[in-house]
Amino acid sequence: MMLWSAAPPAPNPRRVTIFAAEKGLNLAATELAIFKGEHKAPAHLARNPRGQVPVLELDDGTCIAESVSICRYLDALHPDPPLFGTDALDRARVDTALRWVEFVLGTPLALVWVNDHPLTAPLFGTAHQAFGASNRPKVAAALDWFDRRIADYVAGDGFTIADIVLWSSLDFGRWTGIVDLTPHARLRDWFDRVSARPSVVATGGVTPPVG
Amino acid sequence: MMLWSAAPPAPNPRRVTIFAAEKGLNLAATELAIFKGEHKAPAHLARNPRGQVPVLELDDGTCIAESVSICRYLDALHPDPPLFGTDALDRARVDTALRWVEFVLGTPLALVWVNDHPLTAPLFGTAHQAFGASNRPKVAAALDWFDRRIADYVAGDGFTIADIVLWSSLDFGRWTGIVDLTPHARLRDWFDRVSARPSVVATGGVTPPVG
Repeated sequence: MMLWSAAPPAPNPRRVTIFAAEKGLNLAATELAIFKGEHKAPAHLARNPRGQVPVLELDDGTCIAESVSICRYLDALHPDPPLFGTDALDRARVDTALRWVEFVLGTPLALVWVNDHPLTAPLFGTAHQAFGASNRPKVAAALDWFDRRIADYVAGDGFTIADIVLWSSLDFGRWTGIVDLTPHARLRDWFDRVSARPSVVATGGVTPPVG
Repeated sequence: MMLWSAAPPAPNPRRVTIFAAEKGLNLAATELAIFKGEHKAPAHLARNPRGQVPVLELDDGTCIAESVSICRYLDALHPDPPLFGTDALDRARVDTALRWVEFVLGTPLALVWVNDHPLTAPLFGTAHQAFGASNRPKVAAALDWFDRRIADYVAGDGFTIADIVLWSSLDFGRWTGIVDLTPHARLRDWFDRVSARPSVVATGGVTPPVG
């Protein structure tokens, strides 16, 4: 197997590298140079027509796109420790939490990044900067949402894929300066706890904010 | 079990009612009146803090939010017919297709609906109408994307959750007038075939366009 990946702070490859580390898997990985557009080159479009990373290429050349789909595949092959929940109800609960991370936080975070950030303005223009900026309060509200609800972990008392995706999103959001955890003490504590996990440390730890 | 739902054309409850019908399940359902805000009332916020439908309430009062998470729960309890794929690789492939439906089509469709549609303007204002309109070509590109790639079904040769979510999105998109399938012959054929399935007919069939 080969993981086609990209260096931090790319948040989606990070989900898979942390997930694999939690499972004790040693995935061979090749990092594409996003800033050179290697993920949009024909060789990579043959692996994933969306031109995105990560992609997991199996030994027979079959390619699996989408970070969470790759994690589900690895989870099916290596069920321990369970990172998508245990029984049917627990798995549903984890899936709900995962979707909330992606939709409640991930969507407005991406809309700010694409439309209202100096690093992406040269790529995407500034025509919709006001719209992008209007998503900043939604990011703050999402942080408050998780801050108020988080227990030991996002989906309850066990570490799961929902924690991995939330952590990767927050690490990326802090790197860009869009996310400020200062007003969110419980979420910050959770972030610090997850940041200290061997899986996170071994895959590069916290990304230093752009500076 | 009780499904807290909403009448068509609400696309997310429809995913679950079609899914349940494909499984041969007879789910008791209560439709909340979205236009009266019943989904934002305290009784429903107790079921789902996001104030959204659908929610599946189990007999002991446990509530599962998020349409796809509910479908995963029903799939775990009633594995036949398989609607999330079969083996690990097939399940990954279905999950990738599902995510592409939600991200490639669902996101721009929602951004048009919320920001550039006369039915939602009274709710959300028109401050970001130009941004909403800029997502219309993305909707068209998404339709073209699926039109070029669709085989018998979205994830390959079997009917899956990815078809259910795509069909519900297109039914909603046609109802709003945002989606026009006329230039997309293969996708239109697929839509017509899925529209004729007993599960779709029994849950209300195609929603007539507004107007």
